[in-house]
Amino acid sequence: VSGQDEGGNAEREARAALMRAAEPATPGLLRLVHQAGAVAALEHVLSGRPALAAEDVAGGGLDSEGMRLRIDSSSGRRDLERAATAGARLVIPTDPDWPAGLADLDRGGLGCLGLYVRGRGSFVDRVEGAVAIVGTRAASDYGRGVAADLAHGLAIRGRATVSGLAFGIDAAAHQGALSAGVEQAGTVAVLACGVDMVYPKSHSWLLSRVLDCGLVVSEHPPGAAPHRARFLIRNRLIAALSTGTVVVEAAARSGARSTARYAATLGRAVMAVPGQVTATTSTGCHQLLRDDPAVGLIRGVDDIIEQVGAIGELAPRATGATSVRDQLDRVATRVLDAVPVSRAAPSERIAVTAGVSIDRTVVVLGQLLSAGLVDSATSGWRLGAQERAARATRRGERAGQDAFDLDW
Amino acid sequence: VSGQDEGGNAEREARAALMRAAEPATPGLLRLVHQAGAVAALEHVLSGRPALAAEDVAGGGLDSEGMRLRIDSSSGRRDLERAATAGARLVIPTDPDWPAGLADLDRGGLGCLGLYVRGRGSFVDRVEGAVAIVGTRAASDYGRGVAADLAHGLAIRGRATVSGLAFGIDAAAHQGALSAGVEQAGTVAVLACGVDMVYPKSHSWLLSRVLDCGLVVSEHPPGAAPHRARFLIRNRLIAALSTGTVVVEAAARSGARSTARYAATLGRAVMAVPGQVTATTSTGCHQLLRDDPAVGLIRGVDDIIEQVGAIGELAPRATGATSVRDQLDRVATRVLDAVPVSRAAPSERIAVTAGVSIDRTVVVLGQLLSAGLVDSATSGWRLGAQERAARATRRGERAGQDAFDLDW
Repeated sequence: VSGQDEGGNAEREARAALMRAAEPATPGLLRLVHQAGAVAALEHVLSGRPALAAEDVAGGGLDSEGMRLRIDSSSGRRDLERAATAGARLVIPTDPDWPAGLADLDRGGLGCLGLYVRGRGSFVDRVEGAVAIVGTRAASDYGRGVAADLAHGLAIRGRATVSGLAFGIDAAAHQGALSAGVEQAGTVAVLACGVDMVYPKSHSWLLSRVLDCGLVVSEHPPGAAPHRARFLIRNRLIAALSTGTVVVEAAARSGARSTARYAATLGRAVMAVPGQVTATTSTGCHQLLRDDPAVGLIRGVDDIIEQVGAIGELAPRATGATSVRDQLDRVATRVLDAVPVSRAAPSERIAVTAGVSIDRTVVVLGQLLSAGLVDSATSGWRLGAQERAARATRRGERAGQDAFDLDW
Repeated sequence: VSGQDEGGNAEREARAALMRAAEPATPGLLRLVHQAGAVAALEHVLSGRPALAAEDVAGGGLDSEGMRLRIDSSSGRRDLERAATAGARLVIPTDPDWPAGLADLDRGGLGCLGLYVRGRGSFVDRVEGAVAIVGTRAASDYGRGVAADLAHGLAIRGRATVSGLAFGIDAAAHQGALSAGVEQAGTVAVLACGVDMVYPKSHSWLLSRVLDCGLVVSEHPPGAAPHRARFLIRNRLIAALSTGTVVVEAAARSGARSTARYAATLGRAVMAVPGQVTATTSTGCHQLLRDDPAVGLIRGVDDIIEQVGAIGELAPRATGATSVRDQLDRVATRVLDAVPVSRAAPSERIAVTAGVSIDRTVVVLGQLLSAGLVDSATSGWRLGAQERAARATRRGERAGQDAFDLDW
C-alpha cells in the first residue's frame, strides 16, 4: 500500500492500535506518544500499568484500563489489513503524504495520530489549497444551491472542497464539486466513522462518487460506528485540512459553527454566507459575522479566493456600473434634470427650472448635446434618444409606479 | 404658526426666499449666509452683483444670476403664507424646535437653511432617538417584511422611523411604524419636493396616514417638484435626523447607500440587513457590510437598539439554548453516547463501547441517572425517558434521514 515503508510498520501498527484504543484527541495519549513514541505508548497501555497522572483520567485523558478493553497486541496489524481490504491506507505524520497543515493540530493540543485515506491520488496534492464548505443538515434550497455553486466554482479553480458527507450543506458541497467533472472535480469527505463505513447510509451513492475523483478520510479504525461526540471532534480535521472554512447555513447550535471555531483556533480563514434574517438556517452565520469582524462575508467564490487565495489570484472587486450621468458635475446634473423628456423647451425655461444662469445653461446644454444626453430641436431642447429610451424602459419595468421611481 | 416669533420674521422670510432661489446644500450660499446672515445674503443675491468668487460658480456654488431667475423680493413671504395654508411651518436653526443633530450638517459642509414641517407635535420630540430605515424601491417581499417589522419594533420602543415615502422599503417602514397605532406610532417622512406635494402621487394615502401621527418634512419651498438630484441631497437629512441608518435592501447602485454614506460622514451608526446572496436586492447591503467592519449586521430591532441605544437600553444577546448535555465532561459524554436508546445494556458493554474503564463507567452512569439522562433496568442501562422522547422527536422532524442526523 502506498505511503508505507518496511521500517515504519511497527510505528504504523502501534498508531493503528492506539487509534482504536482511544477516542481522537485524547490529551493524555497525545502527550505520551509525543514523549515516548507510539510503540512505547502502546506497550504502556497494554502493560496494565496505571495511568501516568490522575488528572489525565479525570480530564478524559489516558484511561489505560478503558483503552485495554478495546484492543490487544495484534489490533494494529488487523486494522491495517482490514483497511487495505477496503482500499484504504493509514497515513501517519512521518509519511510524505501527510498534509503539512495537520501539524497545526499538535500546537492546538488537538493532535491526530494518523488518518485512514481511501480513494485515488496523493492526499497532499488533493488538499493543497482546499476549502471547507460546511453547514446545517436541515438546509434550505437556498443554502444547498449556494453550497453547490461555491464548491463548483472552487473545483474549476483547482481547489478541492472538504466536507463531512452529511445531509444538507455537506452533500450539496460534495455534489457541487463533483459537477465540475472527474477531471476537474476534487473533494474530500472526512468521516466520523470508519472509512469502510457509510454514514448516513443513504449517502452510499455519494461516497462512491466522491471516491471516483476524491478522497474519503477518517481517523477512526475500520468498522467504527459514528458516535455523537465523534462528529464534533471530526470537525477539527475538516478545518485543519483546509485553508479556510465557509459556513453556508447554520442554526444557532450547529456543528458547522464548531468547525468555524476550530478554523479560527488553527489560524485558518473563517467565512460565512449571509441569508434572510427571518430564516433560522442562517442564524449561525449571522452570529459568526457579528461576533468577529475577521469573519469574511461570502457572496460568491471570488470572495472565498480573496480570503484564502495566493497573491495574484485575487478576483477583481465587483463594482456598480457607472454611466456618463455619474461623471456630470452638479450644475450639469441640474440642467439635465430640467430638460423635458419629449416636448422641447427653450434654454431660458430650462435655466429657470434648474436655477442656473442662462449663459451657463446654454454652455452646459452644448456639452450635454456633445455627450448625446440631450437633443436640440427648433423649439428648444429635449432629452437625447438614448436617455428617453432608458427612461421608458425603466418606467415599463415598474408599471404602475411614477416616472421618478428609480433608486437615486 | 408655532415656532415663529415677530423678531425672527425677516430672517425666516429671507431663508424661505433663499431656499427657493438655490438648490439645497449650495456651498457658496451656505458660506455667505454663515458669514453675513440670511437677510444680507438675500440682499446680495437680489442686488444683481456678481458671484463672490468664480470658483463658487464653477463648483455649483453662488450663481446669483441663476438664483435671481427664481425669486423676487416678496418670494419668502409668499412661501411662508403658502406653507401655512398647507398646515406647514418653516423651522430655522435659531428655533427651539430645530433638532440639535442638524448642526452636524454644517460641520460637513452640507448645511440646511431651514425645514418646512407639516404635521402634529414637536419636531425635536418626534426625532429624539429616531432611526432611519431606508432601501430600494424595487424591494422584495422579504425586504418589505423586515422593514415593517423593524419600524414597528422601534415604534413600540418609543422611537420614530425616518424614511423617504418612496415605494418599497420606505413605504414598508412608514407602514410598520403606523401599525403600532396612533398613540405609539412615530414616523417622519422627508420629501424631495414641497411639503404640500405628494411624490409618488399614488402615496397620497400614506402621506395622510403619516400626518395622523407623525411629520412630513422638506427643505424645498411649497410647490417644488421632485427633481432627480433632489432625492440624493435629501438623503443627508434622513441621515442627520436619525441616530442611525438601517439599509434593509439595496441594489449595487442604490440611493439608500448614499444615505448610509451620509450617516457615516455625520458620525451616525450605519447598519445593514443581510439577505440571500443570490438576491440583487441585497447586493448593496452585503457591500456595506463587507466595506466597513463598523457597519452593524441587523437581524432584528434588538440589534438596532444595541447600536443606537442609550446605556441600559441594551437588549440581552441572543444565545443558543443550553442543555444538561452541554455541561457533561468528555468522559460522561462518551459514556452517554454508548448507552443504548431503548434495549438496556450492562455497564461492561457500555464501558467497551465508550472506551472508558468499567469502574469509571459505573460512577458516571450513576451521575447520569441522577441527572435523569439514563434509566436503570434489571438488564442494565438505557437512555432516560426524556432523552428517548427528544431523540424520537428529532427523528420525526426529519423523516427519511438517519437517526444521527442532528447538527453536532
